[in-house]
Amino acid sequence: MTTTIGPVTPQQMHFAEALPLASGARLADYHLVYETYGTLNAARSNAVLVCHALNAGAHVAGLDAEGQLGWWDNLVGPGKPLDTNRFFVIGVNNPGSCFGSTGPMHPNPATGRAWGADFPVVTVEDWVDAQARLVERLGIGRLAAVIGGSLGGMQALAWTLRHAERVQHCIAVATAPNLSAQNIAFNEVARRAIVTDPEFHGGHFYAHGVLPRRGLRVARMIGHITYLSDDSMEAKFGRELKAGPAGALGYTTQDIEFQIESYLRYQGDKFSEYFDANTYLLITRALDYFDPARAHGGNLAAAFAPARDKRFLLVSFTTDWRFAPARSREIVKALVDNHIAVNYAEIDAPHGHDAFLLDDARYHGVLRAYFDRVARSV
Amino acid sequence: MTTTIGPVTPQQMHFAEALPLASGARLADYHLVYETYGTLNAARSNAVLVCHALNAGAHVAGLDAEGQLGWWDNLVGPGKPLDTNRFFVIGVNNPGSCFGSTGPMHPNPATGRAWGADFPVVTVEDWVDAQARLVERLGIGRLAAVIGGSLGGMQALAWTLRHAERVQHCIAVATAPNLSAQNIAFNEVARRAIVTDPEFHGGHFYAHGVLPRRGLRVARMIGHITYLSDDSMEAKFGRELKAGPAGALGYTTQDIEFQIESYLRYQGDKFSEYFDANTYLLITRALDYFDPARAHGGNLAAAFAPARDKRFLLVSFTTDWRFAPARSREIVKALVDNHIAVNYAEIDAPHGHDAFLLDDARYHGVLRAYFDRVARSV
Repeated sequence: MTTTIGPVTPQQMHFAEALPLASGARLADYHLVYETYGTLNAARSNAVLVCHALNAGAHVAGLDAEGQLGWWDNLVGPGKPLDTNRFFVIGVNNPGSCFGSTGPMHPNPATGRAWGADFPVVTVEDWVDAQARLVERLGIGRLAAVIGGSLGGMQALAWTLRHAERVQHCIAVATAPNLSAQNIAFNEVARRAIVTDPEFHGGHFYAHGVLPRRGLRVARMIGHITYLSDDSMEAKFGRELKAGPAGALGYTTQDIEFQIESYLRYQGDKFSEYFDANTYLLITRALDYFDPARAHGGNLAAAFAPARDKRFLLVSFTTDWRFAPARSREIVKALVDNHIAVNYAEIDAPHGHDAFLLDDARYHGVLRAYFDRVARSV
Repeated sequence: MTTTIGPVTPQQMHFAEALPLASGARLADYHLVYETYGTLNAARSNAVLVCHALNAGAHVAGLDAEGQLGWWDNLVGPGKPLDTNRFFVIGVNNPGSCFGSTGPMHPNPATGRAWGADFPVVTVEDWVDAQARLVERLGIGRLAAVIGGSLGGMQALAWTLRHAERVQHCIAVATAPNLSAQNIAFNEVARRAIVTDPEFHGGHFYAHGVLPRRGLRVARMIGHITYLSDDSMEAKFGRELKAGPAGALGYTTQDIEFQIESYLRYQGDKFSEYFDANTYLLITRALDYFDPARAHGGNLAAAFAPARDKRFLLVSFTTDWRFAPARSREIVKALVDNHIAVNYAEIDAPHGHDAFLLDDARYHGVLRAYFDRVARSV
């Protein structure tokens, strides 16, 4: 039997000491929002950190005060694959995000006005450093595991490179050792849509009382296409008309004719109401910049040398064309080249990149088995 | 030896009789711009019609007065695979386009002002009907062949269904029997970028003396991603920095960091200076609507029954993820089901959808051999 946790209450931790960033800038006087589930054991050895991707935050599991389920609730909870009866699970929102932690909509201490586009560029490594400080404050010397999907998977990998002594297992799902030119291209188009929206105002739209909704809508629509597989989009929408199977064609260039258009517009509209435009730029840039092999002349195996005594689980999905299985296999090869223990599961799932968020029996079975193993090592 | 034709002069044909459109509307008092290359033989049996895709027009081959090479000059000319020493080749710009034929920037006879967004929605079938009228005016009873790539391939297919008695061979390259949900999705995002650009003014931007450049740029950038293969983009740009291999990271969200960004922005900027926004909407919609099986309950084989005594060459490219080989194979199967003579070549080329415009030896070899066969049947 699995049950749902809740209501869970987000907590906040303030950091007075500035965080040095990869860019050379420093983030001063910031706070992180986080949630925890389960109980830290006496040995403080059962903590698992969950890292989020673009459109998520600290609310990983359970119901919050508004009745919203956590974004990975199908995975995390009592009796679930990441079982909160055994593990103390931490969800934390990264700086630069728009879900509670210090971000572009918060005041810049230097000016008293919203950071806006002046918020410092943050990297996956910066986030991992911020997370490591939080984990330390929580009195946890070493994490049993760190887990994430997509951009969250990149953070899980970065933990084993920057804070190797402070993590035992890394579970990286639907991720990549860096973005391809095509991945960067999609991010760049989305950013251009936002930045060229007249209501973006160079990133200082807060002061103008407007939001660059047009740009955000287009950005989200592009994103959605890359999250779904061609096949699942075909199965779900195909060429179905909004007017229904017996409906007549409207012969229109601006109104909705096909269901897929209706779906994408709805996703874009919804997203543009709550997601921060500057956060979109920051997070897609963090994705672009992630490239642990860069400091090693492109040699990914050399990059993974610090992770030598860690254990890894990599998971990919056959229909994920954003971060295809071949990208996970690059990581597996780099680990094997270092004689690092790695399990790899390539899940035959139809849902594309989004599969990492879905409740697929084979996928969750692999995670459950792996967390059983983590539990034995606690 | 191949040589380049030129200078070639575009010609114009006026049509006083209204063209009935699939939507039920009629296009009155329109003109078509066309070019011809080679000489029509005495039997008037050696004419080949070339159909264009989104970003092209009547100028197929040779040098025009401005010194611009035709968009398919590598294929069409003396001694080239479509040899103008043997064939009389016709290039025609479709109505609704922005390369000379009647389109949204021309005056609406009902108002005297530019058509703008009121230009009637045109379909692949409408274009083929307009082309058939032009061919008739040129005194050609039956085309030896019709050829096109991508959207041009759809027109070539439509000829064999609507004007079967007036065409002998159909050569359809890098095309599909209809758009997938993903194809429509990319078109829709591009359209939304254009339509929500404040300078679009509901499609009547001509009267405001502005152009929706921001939207067109984003639309073109999205298009470009889908025209190239993931691999060719990776080979051409990878993660190369604008600052060069030894360059430092700029840590910027709005400035160019990677070469792929520079390339896409350049393509977007260039396109936005000359391409008409209303034409972009019209042509992407013509793509969305093309679906010959629709009138036959989705049965593509039934749709191809009128093409029973035609001969077909279908060509696809292995790395084309926009109109993948599987889409061409659907057409081949429908033809085979009708016992129609079809040759099919799946070319192992790295360049994605754009390959249909490039000079690949195996691809052009297949076309040369097929046109030899067409020449023998003239």
